[in-house]
Amino acid sequence: MPFAVIMAGGRGERFWPRSRMARPKQFLSLLGKKTMLQLTVERIAGLVGIWNTYIVAGAEFKDLILQQIRQLPEENIIIEPYGRDTAAAIGLAAMVLGQKNPREVMVVLPADHYVGNMRSFHETLRSAIATAGRGEQIVTLGITPHSPETGYGYIHRGELFDTIAGIPAYHAARFLEKPDYARALEFLASGNYLWNSGMFIWRTDVIRALIGKHLPVLAEGLVEMEESLGTDLYPQKAAEVYAKLQKISIDFGVMEQADNVLVIPCDFEWDDIGCWTALERYIEKDERGNVLQGRGVLLDTTNTYVVSPDKTVALVGVKDLIVVNTRDSMLICHKSQAQEIKKAVRALQDEGFDDVL
Amino acid sequence: MPFAVIMAGGRGERFWPRSRMARPKQFLSLLGKKTMLQLTVERIAGLVGIWNTYIVAGAEFKDLILQQIRQLPEENIIIEPYGRDTAAAIGLAAMVLGQKNPREVMVVLPADHYVGNMRSFHETLRSAIATAGRGEQIVTLGITPHSPETGYGYIHRGELFDTIAGIPAYHAARFLEKPDYARALEFLASGNYLWNSGMFIWRTDVIRALIGKHLPVLAEGLVEMEESLGTDLYPQKAAEVYAKLQKISIDFGVMEQADNVLVIPCDFEWDDIGCWTALERYIEKDERGNVLQGRGVLLDTTNTYVVSPDKTVALVGVKDLIVVNTRDSMLICHKSQAQEIKKAVRALQDEGFDDVL
Repeated sequence: MPFAVIMAGGRGERFWPRSRMARPKQFLSLLGKKTMLQLTVERIAGLVGIWNTYIVAGAEFKDLILQQIRQLPEENIIIEPYGRDTAAAIGLAAMVLGQKNPREVMVVLPADHYVGNMRSFHETLRSAIATAGRGEQIVTLGITPHSPETGYGYIHRGELFDTIAGIPAYHAARFLEKPDYARALEFLASGNYLWNSGMFIWRTDVIRALIGKHLPVLAEGLVEMEESLGTDLYPQKAAEVYAKLQKISIDFGVMEQADNVLVIPCDFEWDDIGCWTALERYIEKDERGNVLQGRGVLLDTTNTYVVSPDKTVALVGVKDLIVVNTRDSMLICHKSQAQEIKKAVRALQDEGFDDVL
Repeated sequence: MPFAVIMAGGRGERFWPRSRMARPKQFLSLLGKKTMLQLTVERIAGLVGIWNTYIVAGAEFKDLILQQIRQLPEENIIIEPYGRDTAAAIGLAAMVLGQKNPREVMVVLPADHYVGNMRSFHETLRSAIATAGRGEQIVTLGITPHSPETGYGYIHRGELFDTIAGIPAYHAARFLEKPDYARALEFLASGNYLWNSGMFIWRTDVIRALIGKHLPVLAEGLVEMEESLGTDLYPQKAAEVYAKLQKISIDFGVMEQADNVLVIPCDFEWDDIGCWTALERYIEKDERGNVLQGRGVLLDTTNTYVVSPDKTVALVGVKDLIVVNTRDSMLICHKSQAQEIKKAVRALQDEGFDDVL
């Protein structure tokens, strides 16, 4: 049975002030009652089982994870000493899981994405797992674009590799950074570009080998940690290794370098829910395009998204705003600037207002 | 010594959510540390003395007034059973003060206006008191306009009546309602129009006579109340009389009807501080025209006024907003709509959210 590895180390700053240092986006109920992490675990545990589901996160989130995922065995939380981006987190998980079964496939999933159609998601993953299980290739899922998004990375789809269980996999010709709008339009029109979903499927030994080839410092660190794994020395060794690591993403560190990457185009509804405006797509609006979560009145107000669970609000004569009120802080952001909220978080940090971060 | 009568019955809805039913605008420290009422009392008590200073308000504000104006004798608060606009409030005050001295002058002042130059204010009032003391005319103060304001009523200045203590008084030819912008420009250009300040100077017997002529229901009510004044019957009698009164302003009920009205043009800085944007004129701004009262950061934000004493705020990519955060409620209003805040207050009332009003 393959492993699932859920990456839960993100900070989700673009959801400030709802997401906080102590409770980032993946631990929030942004869509309905369940948290993003709970939805992610449900989605994958239905395929691989909860005993094979692992979560990578910092030690500070261990209790929160166990509270939110009651059926998760405590030892299925893989603790990172610090956040060092996805390459380190994935390397660590591959090392831990490789100890259990080095030739088994691991499915890597972000903890905070939305997937619309679980059946299609499972079918795609089954094919991807079968393909990755051969040990020659690593597989990533590419989402068929339906709009010229500038907020996602893209994958240029190459030649057909094979069709497994009715699902075609293609060679990934190139990974591309977030495009400007004109390029995004070209990508959409060409039909040969897919959104980079951040979901990966590979054997633990295969990704370890690729890390060995492209990220030698990380690879050496993993070997050092592996030697003390299961002993009392491990936590200190892990901290020492992590202190030496650069922050680097798996996309930049491995995917863009490797020549044996396949991509499976996916048609299920998917969204990385990267910011408030992305979230808003999944919430019902009034006839003027407003969302009001909380008590209040909206006068002469259009296309505005208000989250105010504890305060009564009145909006008069405004448009295109995101308004988020929490117990101790408030955000007002023009929708066109939703990506810039992380800058506001840094500015608040610079001012020393850490108590609201 | 003349009497001063400060009208403190207003609701100040356009300052929601800082002004509340239980603490309207005149009881708030909008400019500096002192409340608008404290500033008004200081300004006039310097001329007539605190013992001759009276405040008209509802019973619900009695404790608040005594807290804020510690030196005020309790009997100088003239209680109205209900708010019935300025004609009734002034009539009541004239009746009460007429019992003390019917031929004495009373100066009527709103509780919530800003006056920039106290010395000029006092000089003007001294002249107005001398003029009104003759008993032939009633006097109002007209502010020399410096901009085409559409938020004020205007007074058309007629012929010169007389110059007393170096200050000329004119016949008030006509009272005009708030104009549109084009007319306000004409008024400003002509030089013969003054802003209606809502400040009046007259003898108590003279205004009683004018009320008798133009507002007979009020006049009869005042006589009924007068008969029981000082007895246990008075509160019930006052409530009965007030229940029969229409809401009517002194401007509409008397000033626009009377033919013996004088107006003294005033050059001191004056503002009725009618809404948040008016208040903002007296507050220092940053280089992008922002005011931030409270803790927070403003990114790519211009011409925005934020009051947030208890919550940390972040504003990103917005402009021309008024943002007011209080313990339990929040307003976000485009500056062009500052006059409409009272509509929001009514909408909140219609929704049953009285606890935040």
